[in-house]
Amino acid sequence: MTGLPLHHVALAVESLETAVPLYESITGSGSSPIETLATQGVRVTFIGHQLELIEPLEEDSGVGRFLARNGPGLHHIAFTSADLEADLERLAAEGYERIDPVPRPGAFGHRVAFLHPRSTGRVLVELVEEHGVTPP
Amino acid sequence: MTGLPLHHVALAVESLETAVPLYESITGSGSSPIETLATQGVRVTFIGHQLELIEPLEEDSGVGRFLARNGPGLHHIAFTSADLEADLERLAAEGYERIDPVPRPGAFGHRVAFLHPRSTGRVLVELVEEHGVTPP
Repeated sequence: MTGLPLHHVALAVESLETAVPLYESITGSGSSPIETLATQGVRVTFIGHQLELIEPLEEDSGVGRFLARNGPGLHHIAFTSADLEADLERLAAEGYERIDPVPRPGAFGHRVAFLHPRSTGRVLVELVEEHGVTPP
Repeated sequence: MTGLPLHHVALAVESLETAVPLYESITGSGSSPIETLATQGVRVTFIGHQLELIEPLEEDSGVGRFLARNGPGLHHIAFTSADLEADLERLAAEGYERIDPVPRPGAFGHRVAFLHPRSTGRVLVELVEEHGVTPP
């Protein structure tokens, strides 16, 4: 089997308006247009190709609770899957706990699914099957 | 200026012997030979190209204290620099706080430097100027 390459790393931030210029200036990379994912309660953008910034739409959301508990910082890592159903099935068979038993819509029209940190060494892991437009 | 692409994301782990097979099986990628960086008090390996696992050699080290405080998890993100001195100078001029005012040796013969989280949105940021062998 070919390994799943890293797709992106995501930072939880309190404000995209503050964080975007910060990480743009650190990396010298531009950001993609901000996308609102209402079903997941977040606004997201990419700095360059592999750094995602996520801001909660409300405090009572997964990312909102993460910020309240931890403050801003590294939130999850995502790997690229060429066949999300097959990878989810393989990982479930190997004992990994799926937050999303079936894929759901992610940013940029991609399909995504998360694994629970308690089965992945305390790191929130996302799988991304790319569809549609890739971030700049 | 061309942006600095993501080089890797690093996870702090309590034991490489446990964490390596875990992330190998999640990603389906192999790991590089484990390298000991005595000066930084860590053992490191890469899973695939962009996922670094770091284990402290002793509790009284930066990564050891991180583990005691936070448990295992996301530790830092690193960006690729083509000219580390120039990027460090630019970032210092823009007000970012350098942990390493000058580059120091990192894994795989690369030169690295860290920026302090208090100037980078609470995220430990590393810059890597690649030299020598790239991880598999």
